[in-house]
Amino acid sequence: MNRTTLVLLAVLAGCADPTVDDRSEASPNVVVILADDLGYGDLESYGHPTIQTPHLDQLAAEGQRWTSFYAGAGVCSPSRAALLTGRLPIRNGVQPISRSRRVFFPDSFGGLPADEVTIADVLKPKGYAAAAIGKWHLGHLPEYLPMSQGFDSYFGIPYSNDMNAVGGWRLETFFAEPDIENWDVPLMRDEEEIERPANQHNITKRYTEEAVAFIRQNADSPFFLYLAHSMPHVPLFASEEALGRSARGFYGDVIQEIDWSVGQVVSTLRELGLEENTLVVFTSDNGPWLKMLQHSGSSGLLRDGKATTWEGGMRVPAIFWMPGSVEPGVVHGIGSSIDLLPTIAAFAGADLPEGVVIDGVDLSPTLKSKTASPRDQMIFYRRDELYAIRKGPYKAHFITETSYVADTNRTVHSSPLLFNVDEDPSEKYNIADSHPEVLAEILDIAREHDAGVVRRDPELEKYPRTDGDAVEEPSTHRPWLN
Amino acid sequence: MNRTTLVLLAVLAGCADPTVDDRSEASPNVVVILADDLGYGDLESYGHPTIQTPHLDQLAAEGQRWTSFYAGAGVCSPSRAALLTGRLPIRNGVQPISRSRRVFFPDSFGGLPADEVTIADVLKPKGYAAAAIGKWHLGHLPEYLPMSQGFDSYFGIPYSNDMNAVGGWRLETFFAEPDIENWDVPLMRDEEEIERPANQHNITKRYTEEAVAFIRQNADSPFFLYLAHSMPHVPLFASEEALGRSARGFYGDVIQEIDWSVGQVVSTLRELGLEENTLVVFTSDNGPWLKMLQHSGSSGLLRDGKATTWEGGMRVPAIFWMPGSVEPGVVHGIGSSIDLLPTIAAFAGADLPEGVVIDGVDLSPTLKSKTASPRDQMIFYRRDELYAIRKGPYKAHFITETSYVADTNRTVHSSPLLFNVDEDPSEKYNIADSHPEVLAEILDIAREHDAGVVRRDPELEKYPRTDGDAVEEPSTHRPWLN
Repeated sequence: MNRTTLVLLAVLAGCADPTVDDRSEASPNVVVILADDLGYGDLESYGHPTIQTPHLDQLAAEGQRWTSFYAGAGVCSPSRAALLTGRLPIRNGVQPISRSRRVFFPDSFGGLPADEVTIADVLKPKGYAAAAIGKWHLGHLPEYLPMSQGFDSYFGIPYSNDMNAVGGWRLETFFAEPDIENWDVPLMRDEEEIERPANQHNITKRYTEEAVAFIRQNADSPFFLYLAHSMPHVPLFASEEALGRSARGFYGDVIQEIDWSVGQVVSTLRELGLEENTLVVFTSDNGPWLKMLQHSGSSGLLRDGKATTWEGGMRVPAIFWMPGSVEPGVVHGIGSSIDLLPTIAAFAGADLPEGVVIDGVDLSPTLKSKTASPRDQMIFYRRDELYAIRKGPYKAHFITETSYVADTNRTVHSSPLLFNVDEDPSEKYNIADSHPEVLAEILDIAREHDAGVVRRDPELEKYPRTDGDAVEEPSTHRPWLN
Repeated sequence: MNRTTLVLLAVLAGCADPTVDDRSEASPNVVVILADDLGYGDLESYGHPTIQTPHLDQLAAEGQRWTSFYAGAGVCSPSRAALLTGRLPIRNGVQPISRSRRVFFPDSFGGLPADEVTIADVLKPKGYAAAAIGKWHLGHLPEYLPMSQGFDSYFGIPYSNDMNAVGGWRLETFFAEPDIENWDVPLMRDEEEIERPANQHNITKRYTEEAVAFIRQNADSPFFLYLAHSMPHVPLFASEEALGRSARGFYGDVIQEIDWSVGQVVSTLRELGLEENTLVVFTSDNGPWLKMLQHSGSSGLLRDGKATTWEGGMRVPAIFWMPGSVEPGVVHGIGSSIDLLPTIAAFAGADLPEGVVIDGVDLSPTLKSKTASPRDQMIFYRRDELYAIRKGPYKAHFITETSYVADTNRTVHSSPLLFNVDEDPSEKYNIADSHPEVLAEILDIAREHDAGVVRRDPELEKYPRTDGDAVEEPSTHRPWLN
């Protein structure tokens, strides 16, 4: 065999062009798929008896399935702000203050501050194309839209799909025949409104088509796709092909369409030969919105749901997939969507933002070789108050509050509750009395965190106030100082 | 290639001896592994976040995992009687009458009547060797032990491992340092007591060793192994090698040792080349005994636990495995351990008992080709009363009663509750008002069943009565007649 033949073989093997090798090593594509209000127990691989999620289960089987993975907050806007910045909402300005203003509403004029550094911003210097598709919910005025946050394009409903309810927000509307006219929400492309009300019937399908098109367009350059489904947030919608398919009913149809969507994304990656060069992450923004009854998901064996700092509000499915790079298995260690920014930066060889506190930790060692998770604690805020802290298997609650099923039941615990959530994931058995040293350690963490945190001005408080609006001040309630 | 070579090759391929072929087709080995009080949510493949069950999960991945599989009763003795006879306890004599006598106790002198036909009896004419290893709990006098029910041998603790509590049955004893001296239970071989108190520390291990030895001894003849673990019924015990292994704590250690045991059985089958000729079934006798707090399991997203006719009491994990014969997948259709007798008979080509009503249905078509389950209804008794019926996805409750966590809360529903347990597995949303036709159909099933059932004399009522003992009469309460 002469030298020419060798080179030719090398070219045919796809390894003669050094930029290909370089890219494969240094700039994997990144796809983050976020479901909205999907509960811990809503996927087949997380134990749901009737919802069928074969595509997600296959990712879980070929990749890593995390069982103690937390959203960055218990509701939408703060959770997304945490995911995209790697910072607690209390630091990035998207911490709620008022109960009635826990997320951005159509009349909000705030948003995730443009100087906050997102995953898209972090990847930009490495030459990534970045698209945001789906629900944004971090401010819908031009200065807060995805293109002000490092993304090259945007397509989606910019806030929750139940907003601008025509005739007022009434629970019964959600359970009536699905009608897009009930929800006067815009569909946007980049900064333009292109449809109103958005046709939500096929919204999951259209997000998927946009995602697949973006992947195809960028098959030859590194890309970051942030695909944030509007579903299964109520009002539920599914396309005709998906309706009536699931034994779980309408909610199951919606989840199964999201699973179909994941299948479309992954099959496109495989078709383009990108599967070993793309990190795919699937998770949810918070637990199930239990108030929505049959239209809400399930947190499985976990306690309570969305908005709470009980496990059912914060713990969510999380699947990581990148054949050849993410070592298959189930991980019981702690992780959080707040870790995605440093983790993705590590995969991409990108620099972390300078001069800001990053709360996330780099999970890439665990993803690549199943070493113990580098995260061993988690801080749980509700609105602007520190409600709970997990350290190792132990979780202390300083304040507890149920979800919005009925009346809010809020308790400030003069003696914090303590649970071992590895042994007792349902948070049934308070073991504070028998573990004073653990509680003392967690109280130290609370004091240290609280003393060091710099609270950014609350963007969610930016809305047109009338005389009747109560102006709630940031909380100064700190039970761990007692 | 000449004829001799061809024949030689055929011999080497193991297909020249017609008796081998015949046996493979007609007489597969059968291994039924039963856990005690293991909950629906206690295996990794059923969604538990920290219990690790790699061997069971592998069986589930290579075989069929059923998600709507029911025990034959909500407590031990009746459930086992149903499993082994394919008949509802109300018919086979092991239906409880009194609350205090819901299972056999050490002073009981009843048992599963010897003329009831068990799976071992059914397989006997086909030349099976049959061993019962582990908990029996169908009568411990000689005339009721396994060898009177078609088995060739027995090794195990004949009733619950918390019986004969030294110093009286007190809840706190279960949570103290495990001490076999607290439970004066015998270990038996065949009809002889060989150890007392049984050393429960290594009971799972010893059952496993016996099981493996039985398989090895019978590698060349068809066999039926009924391996009924005493664990995870309280008091929990695990061998030294298993202790401290699980993030779920002691209960997790116990489950993981059962998983290890399954691994031993399966690796023995593989080693002997029997894996394609052995049907392995894993299930539980009822849901978790919630009263046992941290020492009880989890029913996951299901409502309530052991002893109740809520899903958490009756629905259990069920895994079927026989590579090449059981088609891999997840089955959402209804099945029950009461179906094992006719299903195993079908696999073995054995005749069903004549002249008795069999409540079980043959699930082998579903196991072999993933067709819809032939079972479309399920009848739920508590004690001798018909509490609930499931028909398709709908389950009607005529009477509900909580588990024994605190005070019993029993309600006879003048208007039965109705749930769609495929859509609402947690039984949260009563839809009786909007589905009168479904309720009417289920009431018809109740009336027809009730009118046709012949109640056998209650064996559980055979115990030394003192004057103070209330004699409870069989129930005549029939709300569906109202």
